This record gives sequence, C-alpha cells and structure tokens, in this order.
Amino acid sequence: MIPSSPFIPFIFFLFSLLTAAVVQSKQPFFPSAIYHSSLKKESSRSPSKPKPILPYKTRYFPQELDHFTFQPQSYKIFYQKYLINDTHWHRGAPIFVYTGNEGNIEWFAENTGFLLDIAPKFKALLVFIEHRFYGDSLPFGKDSYKSANTLGYLNSQQALADYAVLIRSLKKNLSSDSSPVVVFGGSYGGMLAYWFRLKYPHVAIGALASSAPILQFDNITPWTSFNDAITDDFKDASLNCYEVIKGTWQELDILSSKKEGLAEVSRIFRTCEKLQYIDSAANWLSEAFIYTAMVNYPTKANFMKPLPAYPVEEMCKIIDTFPPGTSKLNRAFAAASLYYNYSNTHKCFDLEHGSDEHGLNGWEWQACSEMVMPMTSSSQSMFPQYSFSYDEFSDHCKSFYGVRPRPHWITTEFGGNNIEQVLKRYGSNIIFSNGLQDPWSRGSVLKNISDTIIALVTKKGAHHADFRGADKDDPKWLIDQRRQEVDIIQKWLDEYYRDYA
Amino acid sequence: MIPSSPFIPFIFFLFSLLTAAVVQSKQPFFPSAIYHSSLKKESSRSPSKPKPILPYKTRYFPQELDHFTFQPQSYKIFYQKYLINDTHWHRGAPIFVYTGNEGNIEWFAENTGFLLDIAPKFKALLVFIEHRFYGDSLPFGKDSYKSANTLGYLNSQQALADYAVLIRSLKKNLSSDSSPVVVFGGSYGGMLAYWFRLKYPHVAIGALASSAPILQFDNITPWTSFNDAITDDFKDASLNCYEVIKGTWQELDILSSKKEGLAEVSRIFRTCEKLQYIDSAANWLSEAFIYTAMVNYPTKANFMKPLPAYPVEEMCKIIDTFPPGTSKLNRAFAAASLYYNYSNTHKCFDLEHGSDEHGLNGWEWQACSEMVMPMTSSSQSMFPQYSFSYDEFSDHCKSFYGVRPRPHWITTEFGGNNIEQVLKRYGSNIIFSNGLQDPWSRGSVLKNISDTIIALVTKKGAHHADFRGADKDDPKWLIDQRRQEVDIIQKWLDEYYRDYA
Repeated sequence: MIPSSPFIPFIFFLFSLLTAAVVQSKQPFFPSAIYHSSLKKESSRSPSKPKPILPYKTRYFPQELDHFTFQPQSYKIFYQKYLINDTHWHRGAPIFVYTGNEGNIEWFAENTGFLLDIAPKFKALLVFIEHRFYGDSLPFGKDSYKSANTLGYLNSQQALADYAVLIRSLKKNLSSDSSPVVVFGGSYGGMLAYWFRLKYPHVAIGALASSAPILQFDNITPWTSFNDAITDDFKDASLNCYEVIKGTWQELDILSSKKEGLAEVSRIFRTCEKLQYIDSAANWLSEAFIYTAMVNYPTKANFMKPLPAYPVEEMCKIIDTFPPGTSKLNRAFAAASLYYNYSNTHKCFDLEHGSDEHGLNGWEWQACSEMVMPMTSSSQSMFPQYSFSYDEFSDHCKSFYGVRPRPHWITTEFGGNNIEQVLKRYGSNIIFSNGLQDPWSRGSVLKNISDTIIALVTKKGAHHADFRGADKDDPKWLIDQRRQEVDIIQKWLDEYYRDYA
Repeated sequence: MIPSSPFIPFIFFLFSLLTAAVVQSKQPFFPSAIYHSSLKKESSRSPSKPKPILPYKTRYFPQELDHFTFQPQSYKIFYQKYLINDTHWHRGAPIFVYTGNEGNIEWFAENTGFLLDIAPKFKALLVFIEHRFYGDSLPFGKDSYKSANTLGYLNSQQALADYAVLIRSLKKNLSSDSSPVVVFGGSYGGMLAYWFRLKYPHVAIGALASSAPILQFDNITPWTSFNDAITDDFKDASLNCYEVIKGTWQELDILSSKKEGLAEVSRIFRTCEKLQYIDSAANWLSEAFIYTAMVNYPTKANFMKPLPAYPVEEMCKIIDTFPPGTSKLNRAFAAASLYYNYSNTHKCFDLEHGSDEHGLNGWEWQACSEMVMPMTSSSQSMFPQYSFSYDEFSDHCKSFYGVRPRPHWITTEFGGNNIEQVLKRYGSNIIFSNGLQDPWSRGSVLKNISDTIIALVTKKGAHHADFRGADKDDPKWLIDQRRQEVDIIQKWLDEYYRDYA
C-alpha cells in the first residue's frame, strides 16, 4: 500500500498546512496515493487557541479584482484587510510592510514579532496586508473558492499589484508620499517581498525575504532537495533516528497486507476512530517530520503547533531512548506525537479529517496553477521514494479545477535561472535570510550576489526564525542575524534620505 | 466654434494617427470638440503604397489570452505575429527584439532600419514582435474590438508578458538559451522596451528605448509640455511662422460665425466635398503641425507621410514667403499641404473621413483605459488654449467603452515619479534616446541616471530618428548618436559573455 513510486503527497508541500494532496483526499488521483490531511484534523480537535491580542488596528481597503484587464468585471471591488500600527511613526518616517501570504494576516502578524521589536528604532509604521483570497479578503465572499472562474484571480501577480495599489493609496491618505517603504515577508510572503522589490522598485526601497524558496521552480533546485534537507536534519540529530524513520514505511507496508493491519495501525496511532486507509498513518507521520524540520527553532515556539526548542532533536531523543525491540512504527508514532501533542491535550488522534484554522486552503489552488514546485524523494531520503511527472500533475489539476497549471510561468514572470548573473548587474537592496535547518532553504539564495543583494545564512535557523519576536533564550547566531538585518535596513534608509534630501 | 477651452483633440494624441478624438467623431463628447481624423482620410484616398519587401520571415506564435488570471477563458490561444531575420545569426549570438507597438509590425520593421544596419556587426538575430490586438495579432479575430469584454485584454502588461513568453519559447526552440536578448522600441514601443527591462531583467539584458515618453503620466511632466515643444519647434524655425499659425484659429473662428463660412473654408482647404464642420479644418491643420514636428527628420523620410528633410523649416518657409496681405488661413493651409501632399498626388482633400492603413485603431482603447497622458495647451502655445479634466475624460471613456480609465495605474505599475532616485540605485543597461525636436522628448528621460542608465539626447533629432536606417545624408549628430548606442550595447554584450563564461 505504500507505493515505492509514485508517492505523491510531498510534492505539493509548501509552507502551509495545505497541500494538493488534500485535494486528492477528495478526489484521489493515484489509486495508491496516501492522504495527507492529518495535521489539520488535530487542529479541529484542539481546544480553540485563545486569540492573542495584537497591537494592530484592522482596516479594509477597497481593492479592484483584476489589475491586468479592463473588462467591466475587472473593476469589481473587494475589501482587503490590513493591520496597522503607528505607535512610533511620524509623517515621513519609514513604512514597513509585510506582504501577506497564504493565510489569515493575523497569524503572520502574530508570528512576526521581529517587526514590532524593531519598529521603535526606525519609528516605523507597521502594515500587514492580507493576501487576496485568504482570511477575510475574499473577493467573492463564501463563493470565492467555487471554481476556476473565481479562483482564477488568486495568484501572485494580482497580489503584488494589490500591495502596490494599497501602499500608494495609504501613503497618499497619510500625506506621507516621501516615506520610504521596506517590504518584509517570510516563506511565500518572502517570495512576494522579493518579487515586489523586483517588480515595484518605485514603491519599495528594499526587501527582506526570509526563507523564500524563489528557486524551487523548474529545474533550478534539485527536486530531491526538500526531502534531502529534512533527512539531513534528522540524520544530524541521530543516525539511528534516521534509520528508524526510514524503516517505518516498510513496517506499515507489511501491516497493510495483513487482515488486521488497519486495526493494528489504528491501535498504535491511538486513533479516535478506526482508520479507513493505512496511508493516512504514513501521511500523518510524514507531516510531523516535515513540519518539525521546518520549525526546528532554537526556542520554545508555537507557529504550527506548540513545540519545545530544537524539536527535531527532541523527536530523535524519543526514538533513540526506546528499549531495544520496540517496533519502528511505535517509535515513529511516539516521535510524531511530540509534534501533535506536546501540550498533552489529545487522548486520541483523528488522522482522516481536517480543518483549516489559519484560512490557508487557497494554497491548493495556487499549487495547481502557478506555484508548481516539483519535488521527489530519492532512495537516500528518510521518506519513501517517489517521483514527479508534469503530465500527471497537470491531469490531476485539470480534473480537479478544470484548468491546467502553467508550470513554467513563475520563472518566466519572475526569473530564477542564473539569478546570480541576472542580479549581479540589476537590482539592489534585497536580503535573503535563511536557516539551513529549514528544508526550504535549499531553494533560496544562499550566497551574496552583490554589495546590496545579500544572503544572511545561519547554520541552525529554521523557517523564518529571524521573523519571530526576540526571546530571552535566543542564541547568539540568531541575535546576530537580526542585528545584521537591522543594520542593512538602516543603511538603505540612510541612503534613501540622502538621495531625496 | 473653435473653443478657447476645452479644446480636446490633442490630449489624446500619441504616437500614432489615431486619437481618442477619433472616437469622438463617432460619439461627440464635447459639443464643440473638433474632429480629428483628416490624416487618415488622406490615406484612404492615396494610391495604395506598394508594400516594401522586408527581409524578414513571418511567423505566428500560439499565445495565451490572459497571463494574469487562471480562468478557463484565460487559456484561449491566439496567434501572435512576429518577423524574424537570421541572416547573420548563429546559436549563442545575441537576439535583438523589437517590442512592437500600436500598429502592424511590418510598419515598425520598415521604419527601424537601424536594426538591419547593426545586425551584421553583432551577428544578431532580429525579431519584431507584433503587439496583441494590432495588425494580424487579434485574439478575437474581427470581433477583437467589439467591446470592453474583448478589448479588456489589450494593455501593456499583457503585451510585456506576451513578449517574455514568446522570447523564452523562441530561445528554447532555437536551442539557444544562452543568447543574450536586447530589447528595442520606439515611442510606445520604447516605453514597452524600457518597461520590459524593468520587469523582465531575467529575459532582456538591456533596452534601447527611443523617444519613449515614460514620464508623460500623472503630473510628472507638465501637461503643456507637448504643445509647448511643438510651438518651440515652429518658433525656432521662424517667429513669423509661429505667429501666423497662432493667428489662424481666430480667422477660422470669425469664419465660423459667418453664413458662408463653411463654404469659404471648404474652398480654401480644397476639400473634395463641402465640409460639415469648420472644426475639421482646425483639426486637419493641427494634425499636420503636430506630426510634422514629430517627424522633423534631417533627411527625406516617409514614416507618416513622404516629407522633405527638416519639414518644419520647410513649412515655415512656405508661410514666410507668401506675399504680404495673404490670410493666415491660406498660409497655414499651404504649410499643412506640405504634410498631406508633398508627393503632389492630391487634387482635393477629404478632411472628414478616415482609414487606418497601419492597423492602429486599438490605441483609442489604450488611451481610454491605462495610457492616460493629460495634455493641455497654454495661452503661449501656437494651438488654441485648452484644459484637461480627469472627470470629463473618464465620463467620455465610460460612455464610449462602458469602462472607466485607470489614470494612475501606469505610474503605480511602472513608476515614473522620482525616477532618478529610484533608478540611481536600481536597474541597469537602459538607453533613453531622444531628439529634442520631438514633442514627446519632454516626457522622457533626458539626463543620465547612473553609469548604465544613459540618456542620449540630440538637439535636432525627432521621433525615434535614431531607429531609421542609415542615410547618406545623415548629419554627424545622428551618426554619433547611433554609434554611441552601438558602443553601449557592445559593452552590455561583452559583460554578459564575461559574466556567463
């Protein structure tokens, strides 16, 4: 039942909880595909988290539906949410804009304490803009996700244009045309921040793109890199840990051929209801390992889930300290439980039904239209081996949404090939920050390109670790990375004020 | 009848024969507006010009309708025409792309001999791409101009994306991914070339934007500049000439209040049929002066019409050499006849019916959607005074097309304000070439911005004079300007080959 190839779920993974594999759970595409929606299910059973009180005012901007056509329907207005904090700002002082990604903007604001931390120094206005089709910024209300006719307007270029229009209007309304704008974003939001600086240099004087895998398209980055990076994270924690996880899939495979296999796996995984598919267990495990590698932060955190510091190491400790003879599956389950149940609120797990507490489910569409990031898993990976086929992927998207992806569009529109040569003589004021523990880092820019296009890389950092608020337990390398960011941004601003003096 | 204000026709003028005023001839917007389609009528009566044999092969590329949405209809294919000449090219050698503007691509190829002249030196492949909705590149065939539902896809961003997609595909098909691409364009095509370098630096290593009034939007360039420049051209030729033309409008005004005024004007203007509106005569004159200023080339040429070298001076000679006592109207008519009838083929003139021999009539739509370039005429202008109102313009476009313009969109999407500060630290490899005789030059970049963003300005040049093929009578300043362009492009290419070595 666990196919050696093609094993599809991971290929759709992005920064969020949602994957095209979730789509498949509604409409299976490969008969043998395992379903990958467990994490969301846990969320639905979690006691709903109290909403943190964010120091932002919520505003809505009347935005036009389609910036790139002039048909009567292009002018339809929807209300785009943005958050604003002007505690330290005065007219003419900088405006720091977070280019929202695939979820409720509050969630990103909550996890980008860095901007609140640095606002006083820069006297910066902070603005977090929600991405169209996420959170409350739904152009067609509850019908927004109805079909390609509505979802067709959900893409990165329209989002970037939204940001440009909103920022221009905001500056005008604040009578602060001369305020320099710096854009910030993490993950897909970091891609948007970089692309915004690339396409709208007249609006933003610089961009800090944290953990932005802008090179994860076409053949620029090896398709195995994402899973290889996770594998390396676990191997670095413990070779035994890697071997246990790698062996788990075969144990599941053997169980799947047994009559009582489903019951046995349900028991091991303490499922609330008996599983329908053994694949669900594989998926649930994989998801835990993937996301834990992404959020392998050096301090306790609660981005995806509440987790201790360096959770990959903690998982591996769990695996490594079991008494000899314990099955790999039992160990892997215990490790994954760290991810799903660190706060110990679950008595049982629901692996086969999801929720979407961060409002992320537009990503399925984006992954099936322009955000095509091919991924595969090699025989060295800790995950089962799988391959990727553009044709099969395209057929899947077509059958689900009625339209095919444009898998080479992102590199046509935004580039990526030969980025060093292209940006060496073009552009300026961009920081690509990455932590090498983050599996997405391998699809980002890890070397300085010019004096003003800088890569800030840490060996230990995880997915946009630098954007988290300062913590008393932060290690020196993280404090240093943030300080470098602040220094570089200060330089951009100094230059700006000199140029415009 | 000639209103002192608002006098609308000129505000819509662009590079082409077509203006929104032509729209008005179908659906008048200001009761007093004069109609501005005479030039086209002449064309219809001209013996059809023999088509020059161009050294290009004609190809068609299957292009998608809408690059910025993913609806089922976005994927509709239309066939985009392009011309190609590979006489001197070999794999890996440069590709020079002309980013087509608002007309048949053959017309631009015919008037861009510069590229044929320099192709041997660079061993360059020459590619002229037709702009969507012009010439044969009609996404909806003969229904392309039916309404905003079809025309909505006609805009600069879609055109730029067309070019990116086509160039990428072409390079792939030629197995020449490593060929550097330089984009060239004149007038609106020059704006597109600059914008292409701005937005697609990964596709084009540099741009030569000739006579590209990228700053003719919003309040960046004074709204009177276009008419002031024409006025200066005529004043520089002869102060008397300027005064005669400036006085013409009053003479027409007086005639318009007379019972036999229309007959009198028809007689003076040798119209084939009696005029319906005296305004048509004012419009016919204005058009001649405007276009003659634009094409005030130092050699005989036939871009808009066949004309002698320095036709503005020739016009003024005609005006100045009339015997004393000749009416201003008679003199102005004689001067304008140089423009309409230099080849002496017309026995009479038709001022009130048009044709469109260059397939330019999509510009009306573009001017009424995104290409809003406000223009006014001051009391010092040689033209009648007129003003501009965004609201009135918007109402006009709405009543004609059913949609309103987005008059500030171009500066949001492409910038323009503070261009020196923005480009000083961003971008590279752009030449803005201009001749100060060209009324559009005042809306372009006339000073170097950085070491690699260069303004090449000539005192005498007219509308993209540098793009014309070399002529034995070319003056030194024009030869020099072209040589500088060649040297700079050579530098870009040398750097490129070094960077990618």
